[in-house]
Parts: sequence; C-alpha cells; structure tokens
Amino acid sequence: MTDFFELQATCGAARAGRLRTDHGEVETPVFMAVGTQGTVKGVTPDQLANTGTKVVLGNTYHLMLRPGADAVAALGGLHVMACWQGPMLTDSGGFQVFSMGDTNTVTEEGCLFKNHLDGSQELLTPERSMEIQHKLGADIVMQFDDVPALPATTERTADTMRRSVRWLDRCQKALPAHSAQGKRQRLFGIVQGGLDLALRAESARELVARDLPGYAIGGLSVGETKGEMNAVLGAVTPLLPAGRPRYLMGVGFPEDMLAAMGQGVDMFDCVLPTRCARHSLVFTSRGRLRMKNAAHATNRAPLDPACGCYTCANFSRGYLRHLIMAGEILGMTLLTIHNLHFYASLMDQAGKAIRQGRYEKFAAETIAQVTAKGS
Amino acid sequence: MTDFFELQATCGAARAGRLRTDHGEVETPVFMAVGTQGTVKGVTPDQLANTGTKVVLGNTYHLMLRPGADAVAALGGLHVMACWQGPMLTDSGGFQVFSMGDTNTVTEEGCLFKNHLDGSQELLTPERSMEIQHKLGADIVMQFDDVPALPATTERTADTMRRSVRWLDRCQKALPAHSAQGKRQRLFGIVQGGLDLALRAESARELVARDLPGYAIGGLSVGETKGEMNAVLGAVTPLLPAGRPRYLMGVGFPEDMLAAMGQGVDMFDCVLPTRCARHSLVFTSRGRLRMKNAAHATNRAPLDPACGCYTCANFSRGYLRHLIMAGEILGMTLLTIHNLHFYASLMDQAGKAIRQGRYEKFAAETIAQVTAKGS
Repeated sequence: MTDFFELQATCGAARAGRLRTDHGEVETPVFMAVGTQGTVKGVTPDQLANTGTKVVLGNTYHLMLRPGADAVAALGGLHVMACWQGPMLTDSGGFQVFSMGDTNTVTEEGCLFKNHLDGSQELLTPERSMEIQHKLGADIVMQFDDVPALPATTERTADTMRRSVRWLDRCQKALPAHSAQGKRQRLFGIVQGGLDLALRAESARELVARDLPGYAIGGLSVGETKGEMNAVLGAVTPLLPAGRPRYLMGVGFPEDMLAAMGQGVDMFDCVLPTRCARHSLVFTSRGRLRMKNAAHATNRAPLDPACGCYTCANFSRGYLRHLIMAGEILGMTLLTIHNLHFYASLMDQAGKAIRQGRYEKFAAETIAQVTAKGS
Repeated sequence: MTDFFELQATCGAARAGRLRTDHGEVETPVFMAVGTQGTVKGVTPDQLANTGTKVVLGNTYHLMLRPGADAVAALGGLHVMACWQGPMLTDSGGFQVFSMGDTNTVTEEGCLFKNHLDGSQELLTPERSMEIQHKLGADIVMQFDDVPALPATTERTADTMRRSVRWLDRCQKALPAHSAQGKRQRLFGIVQGGLDLALRAESARELVARDLPGYAIGGLSVGETKGEMNAVLGAVTPLLPAGRPRYLMGVGFPEDMLAAMGQGVDMFDCVLPTRCARHSLVFTSRGRLRMKNAAHATNRAPLDPACGCYTCANFSRGYLRHLIMAGEILGMTLLTIHNLHFYASLMDQAGKAIRQGRYEKFAAETIAQVTAKGS
C-alpha cells in the first residue's frame, strides 16, 4: 500500500480499492474514458462527469503533434485546458508510433517516425515521451515501450520486451517528480511479452523489481482469443504486488473487463463505448442494440429501462434513431453519454459486488446479460 | 392584445412584449433557434435552455420526410420527442420546396416536388402542410405560401402573393383548433410582395383583414440590400396591428435584427448562430472572431470576457481553436453554445433597452460593437 493506492477488499482474485491523486480520489475498479485529442469525443466535461466517468486518458502522440506539448502547457496543462477536474492518464505515444509499421525506424535510442499531419520526421524517445507527459501534466504517465509488429517471433517479442525494460529505466530517470503544473505524476511500467507466458513473467519480475506506483499490462486486445488473454492475465497478475494498481491497456468489451476483474485487474481504458456510440451501437443491461434498426423507429422506450443516464431519462429510441439516420451530431452525443454511463455503472456495480463478496456470481450473470442480443 | 400576445412597452417603433403559449411564456423581442431536423444542431435541449434560448423552430419539410409526421406524432409530438419544454414554431415547408427550383411544379392546388431523400414525388398543399404541422404540434404554425423564384417580375411577385392569400384561407379552414397533442396552435400569415412596397401593403392589408394571431414578413434576407429590407419593413410594420406579434423570417445578423427591432419587429429566426459556429465563426460583444486564426493558438482568454455562457466560463480560445483544428465535435458544440447565448443575450438586452426607453442609443452602440473586427 502507498499514499497513491489502497487495496480495500478482495473477492477471490478480484480487487476493490482507491486511487489518490492531486486531482482527487477514485474507487477501483475504474474505467478510463479515452480523450485522444484533449476531449472525449462528442461530450463536454460536464456531460462526461455526469456519466459517472472518473478518469480521462489523453494520447501523447496526438497531443504532441497537435496542439503540441508546449501549447498545452501554455494553456495551463491538460486538466486546465480541457476543463477536467478529475484524474488523468497519458499514454507514452509508443503504441501509436509503432502501429505505423513501415513508416518508422526503431533503434535503442528511440523511434523515428513520420508525423501524420505534415509528413515531417520526428524522434520519440523515452526521455522525450517523459518531457511531453511532464508538460501535459497527467496524474499517471506511462513508460515509453517498444512494441513489436504482429505477428512477431519469440525472439523479437523477447528483444522488444527487454528493450522496454531498459527504456523504463530511462523513463524513471527522466521524469521529474512533479508535472510542469507542480502536481504529482506517477509512472506506470508496462508488462510486455506477447502471448509467451515465460516472457510475460520475466517482464513482470523486472518491473516489480523497480518498485513502480502501478503496473500496466500491454500488448493485449490485439487479435488474441479470450483464452489467450486470460492465460496472460493468469500468469502476470499473481506476480504483481497486491498494494499497487494493475491496468489492462485497451480493454475492452464489458465481458472482457468482467473476466479481467476476476483475475485481479483494477483499471481499464478503451475506445469502445465512445467509438461504438458514434457508430450507433449501444450497450445495455439487456444486451447490445443497433440503433439504425428500423424496429426502433416509433419506439417511445428508452435505450435501457434500467439506466439512469441523461439520455435514457429524456429520450426515446425512436428519436435517437431519427437523429442517427439524419446524421445529427446530437445522436452521437446522446449515445456516447449512454455508453459511458453504462461503462461507469458496470465498474460501480463490480466494485460493490467485490466489496460484498459476491463478485463471481455477479460477473457470471452480468456477462450473460451484456452479451445477449438486445431487446 | 390577445391572450396570446401582450404588448408591454414601446420606444419609438421598437416594442417589448410577451407571448403566452401552452408551453410557457416568453418575452419579446425573441430570437428562435433553428432546429431543422428536430434538434438544434450540436446541442442537447439542456445546453440549449442554458444558453437562454426560449423558442425553437422546426422545419416541416425535413420532418415530413424524416422521420415523418406520423412518426413524430407516435413519439409524442415534437416537444416530447425532442425533449423541449418551451414554445416551438414550425414553418410550412413551402420555402424549402420552392427553393428546389426546377424540380417542382406549382399549381393552385399546391406544389409537386421531388423528395430529396429518395427521389419520390410528393405533393405539398396548404391542407397537407396544416395536417403535418398539426401532428408535429408546435405552438405557432406558419401558413403555406407561394414563393416565386428570384429574380421575379412584378407580375409574378403579385400573382404568388395573391395566391399566398388564397392559400392562407385554406390553411385557416384546414387547421384544427388544437394540435394532435391537444395544445393550442396559432396560425401566422406571411406578408409577401418582394421589394414592391405597394404589393407588400396589399399583402399586409389582406392578412390583417383575416385577424390572425401573428404576422410574419417573408421573402427577405434573399440578397436585397439593407436599405431595401428597411424600406419593406417601414412599409409593412405600420400596417400591422399593434396587439399582434411580428416575425421577420430568416433574419439574421445581429445588426440586421437590431435595425428590424427599431422598425417594430418582435420575433426572429436564423441559422447564422448555429451554422457560423460549425464553421468556427464566433459573435462577440467586441466583434466577430474566426477561430481557425493562429493568433488564438495559446490564448488563455475566453471568446468574450463579457459573456457568461458555459463556453466562456470554462474554456480558452486556445483550446477551442485546437478542438476546431482537430475536427472535434466538441468544438462545434462549444461555439454553438456561445453563439446562441450571444443571440439570446442580445434580445434580452434589447428588450431591457426598449422597456427603459433607450433603444435608439442602445441599438446604435451595439451595431458598432458587433460589426467591429473582433479582438
């Protein structure tokens, strides 16, 4: 236990706790909404807070290119600029840079890549990622890591995992104790190693030896089966210290998060609730709804009668479908509000179930509900 | 004076009053936000109400095609469907149908046109416009009128104006006393006659003889000069009864509304505040701002230091510019909130100036401010 994270309850491997940051406290498990370019797409910070969302994630890659880390700092840092009072996390920029494939060149120094906005060459290194994240000012900053293109050989997976450990050392050395705005920043390491459980264990042990504020599990949700993901989580989470938070990056569907919480994961992020909303797919307690479906055209019922979000309190399925068919921005906004509220509520309910010692039953029932064909 | 409209103060020709509808009361002068497809683009009804907007306008043409008048009625009518508690107005569909030019055929019966969504033939008549507006359920419904393609000869202008009067009689006969939702609906006639002051006077006299709840002035803001618009208003408003509201359709820029209020106009609608916001043009008390301008990039000031809207209370010019440059929906939403608040505040201030007997000075000063190059 640290002043940053307190583990408060367990139920099997599932955990409930509390994160304390200079921008407030949040209970875990927690879902972090993705705010790539300094906004969660389609909603104001007020609307976002009203969904029950507690933490927002910003993308270093996008923000370093536009408006630029210095511009964000000049505008008061990411919190002030985007008017988000709660905790924030920034990624390292690595994932976006590496996912560009053949437009980048990786050396021990860092990654040379082509800026997608103007085609200019940029070099991202562990030190530069830390400098940018220091200026952005998030409460949690992620290490810069080396991510192999997939599929990767075991040798390549091992090489990049070990380079990531070396880069973590450079990140720890480079990151000042406080952000440019004078707030505490906590550096998370990222467990890599692909689907190779021995490499995952090696990565986890190396990171734990460095005594970090938190540990992320990266390189998942990239096409592997649910069984493979569960095997990696089962190999990694028992090696991580109980008193530090665990963050499964880029996951995911409600059923995947429920399974991962059962393996002891505390934190999640994913574009799914927001991206699906913009493509008119809705998550409900009775399964998923495709809102372009003509069956909704004159339906006065809300998306989810069990939901208390602004959208469900005020608008019918028929109206929401109309907005989507007419291409109105408001349709995307209202579905985004609903989906984010659904994700935040799922975490709240999971946390309660863990604290009340009934997580296994809760997770099994909820997985069955959320994966049903919607009605 | 009627139970619908009360004239409360005058200052020269400028007027302040009150509209009473089954969905609440509003002070005039009033700006009505355009909600073409059953939503004011980019904002929730809560955000809209918080801008100070009091009345929303819906477009019969768009709504009859999608989702259809019956679907709107099945969803509870336009107020319930769109969750707007305040007064609403619907246009007749005429302007949109006639502006399609060569794809329509006008006879004494009505206008045959091609549905822009699926290419099918549709007939819009005074009776059908009333039937649709009855189902939509707005508090104020507009007569179906004949609008000539421009430029039009005096003969053509006269013919369509006189046909509009005959169509008004059919509208009065066709419109039930109450909407499909059981609420009072008030039918406004539309003064036409182009830039010909004699035809305008004839139109106004014909309409006044029919003793309507309110009178609109149509066919302006279509390319005429400010002098021509003022001449028409100067010829028409003195002929209209003092105890009924006057609505100048489709106008406009703040300076045009200020001039028209000085001629005794009470109600306005225009796409400008919302459409300009989506194209990053902002109205402020110190002139107009183009938010793509690089000068705003690291500016922590709000759009307008004199403004109390949600956008100005929370966000910097630098952040708003970033959102716009990054193509984020939130940028459009926040500029829309600001521009609508600016328009609503302008009406509030104008009403106060009229009630306090200082409208002429207020209008002259405000026109100079709002037309300045922004800073």
